[in-house]
Amino acid sequence: MSLDRLIEKIKEKQNPTVAGLDPKLDYIPGHIKEKAFARHGKTLEGAAAAILEFNKALIDALWDIVPAVKPQCAYYELYGWPGMKALHDTIKYAKEKGMFVITDGKRNDIGSTMEAYAAAHLGMVEVEGEKYAPFEGDALTVNGYLGTDGIAPLLETCREFDRGIFVLVKTSNPSSGELQDKPLEGKPLYRAMGELCEKWGASLPGKYGYTGVGAVVGATYPAQLHELRAALPHTFFLVPGYGAQGAGAADVAGAFDKEGLGAIINSSRAIMTAWKKEGCPPEDFAAAARREALRMKEELKKALLNSAKG
Amino acid sequence: MSLDRLIEKIKEKQNPTVAGLDPKLDYIPGHIKEKAFARHGKTLEGAAAAILEFNKALIDALWDIVPAVKPQCAYYELYGWPGMKALHDTIKYAKEKGMFVITDGKRNDIGSTMEAYAAAHLGMVEVEGEKYAPFEGDALTVNGYLGTDGIAPLLETCREFDRGIFVLVKTSNPSSGELQDKPLEGKPLYRAMGELCEKWGASLPGKYGYTGVGAVVGATYPAQLHELRAALPHTFFLVPGYGAQGAGAADVAGAFDKEGLGAIINSSRAIMTAWKKEGCPPEDFAAAARREALRMKEELKKALLNSAKG
Repeated sequence: MSLDRLIEKIKEKQNPTVAGLDPKLDYIPGHIKEKAFARHGKTLEGAAAAILEFNKALIDALWDIVPAVKPQCAYYELYGWPGMKALHDTIKYAKEKGMFVITDGKRNDIGSTMEAYAAAHLGMVEVEGEKYAPFEGDALTVNGYLGTDGIAPLLETCREFDRGIFVLVKTSNPSSGELQDKPLEGKPLYRAMGELCEKWGASLPGKYGYTGVGAVVGATYPAQLHELRAALPHTFFLVPGYGAQGAGAADVAGAFDKEGLGAIINSSRAIMTAWKKEGCPPEDFAAAARREALRMKEELKKALLNSAKG
Repeated sequence: MSLDRLIEKIKEKQNPTVAGLDPKLDYIPGHIKEKAFARHGKTLEGAAAAILEFNKALIDALWDIVPAVKPQCAYYELYGWPGMKALHDTIKYAKEKGMFVITDGKRNDIGSTMEAYAAAHLGMVEVEGEKYAPFEGDALTVNGYLGTDGIAPLLETCREFDRGIFVLVKTSNPSSGELQDKPLEGKPLYRAMGELCEKWGASLPGKYGYTGVGAVVGATYPAQLHELRAALPHTFFLVPGYGAQGAGAADVAGAFDKEGLGAIINSSRAIMTAWKKEGCPPEDFAAAARREALRMKEELKKALLNSAKG
């Protein structure tokens, strides 16, 4: 009912990294695509098959050193229902390997509709007495613009199935300040959203001090990351924007508490396309992903040590 | 590239109603479910087959009197990838019948990820030179909390494929005021979001005065609906909350302009479950849905006439 399982996996691997699985076809080596297209044609099914094989190989290369994966729903919906099947199969495979899965859907709605999203991504659905887990993530990213009516339906599912959520608070993009930074009764909107996370999370306490309601806070805004870490002591952070969006390890140090917990840093492109950046043979893409993940782990470790010293 | 096609269908049918397709299994008559489960088992595939048959019958009963349908993604995701296939097939069927399809996904993200959602729901995706329309809605509901970075990627797709979007501005739920009503630089957050809609829409002008960027404004807040209609003259409104959420026809009159345009009112549960409310034989569900849609059409017509008089 909290994010304790995620925290335990982070401790076990000594690595606060989540590998984003945003499988653009461009990221996938040619030999995987050729095989998939030979079997399914240049179709949505073919694209979905290539994505799944790519993801599985990445998971095989990362599961023992990276605690979590974060599939981004948009890149699966992009390939229609075959893409959604690849999302399901990716989640299933990552969980079989012991990874924590954060489904990045930024879903939002109210009442029974939000309950449907909660059941779809975190819980189970009943079909005439038979129960199914449609996607079965461990956590889901959500958007809190609709207020408590949009979040409360998730909390029940989190409690029942031992899941968590991450609410968008301060996002990593350049225009995130357009609304999120505007003063709302004397403090920025992102701060008001963050304080709601503390409130919503109170009913899902965890044994490491963090609740089941986390927050998305971008690495590209280190000052706000620091401010929010202090202001939201029970809210675990999912931090995008590291690497491709320009933030470095020093920028994310403020996301962590004194014990070096409290946050998980996402890397999608850098890990998935490490083979391109390295210029290694495409067949070696999974090993390149592992090398990048290990490099990132060390980089974060050093930044956290420096931060503790300073 | 605007919402002109929707407006033209509303004029043609003389009916500013969109039928929400939120197919909970409870809403579906037993004979449809039994047939689907006999064929597919009590599985996600069985549920999806029942949903599709139910939706098709509703579309058959409504297409000549109701201009648009609004499938709610959550109720399709709830049945996993078979549910997403039912969403695709529902959209395809409604479009074949000439209906305008608003995919209610409240999607949100940034940059290339938002482009992926745009292509998935409103545009096309390329697989090694072959092009596919993954879901092919005419419009998509979206959440603007991330600012312009979350909306700009959609505008290009709207222009290319003649589509539109509806941004959440003031939602119909009781707690929508928690954040949306709070003063942000002297005016409510919903008003700031609404003004962004005017700005975002400026690049997608339409011939009836409304752009391709609409707004979701709840029927349950008639005063705000009135205020926003005046403040956002180029923004078309999608209005949920009529019927099941307690708002009546008089409450939504303020959503319309002097020509009786400017808004489309959603009804989901009342149309889909008309057979239950009427107590008619379950086999008669589609005709009951049509009777309810005609009743609503007349009710809105009267309210608009009264509003024009007063």
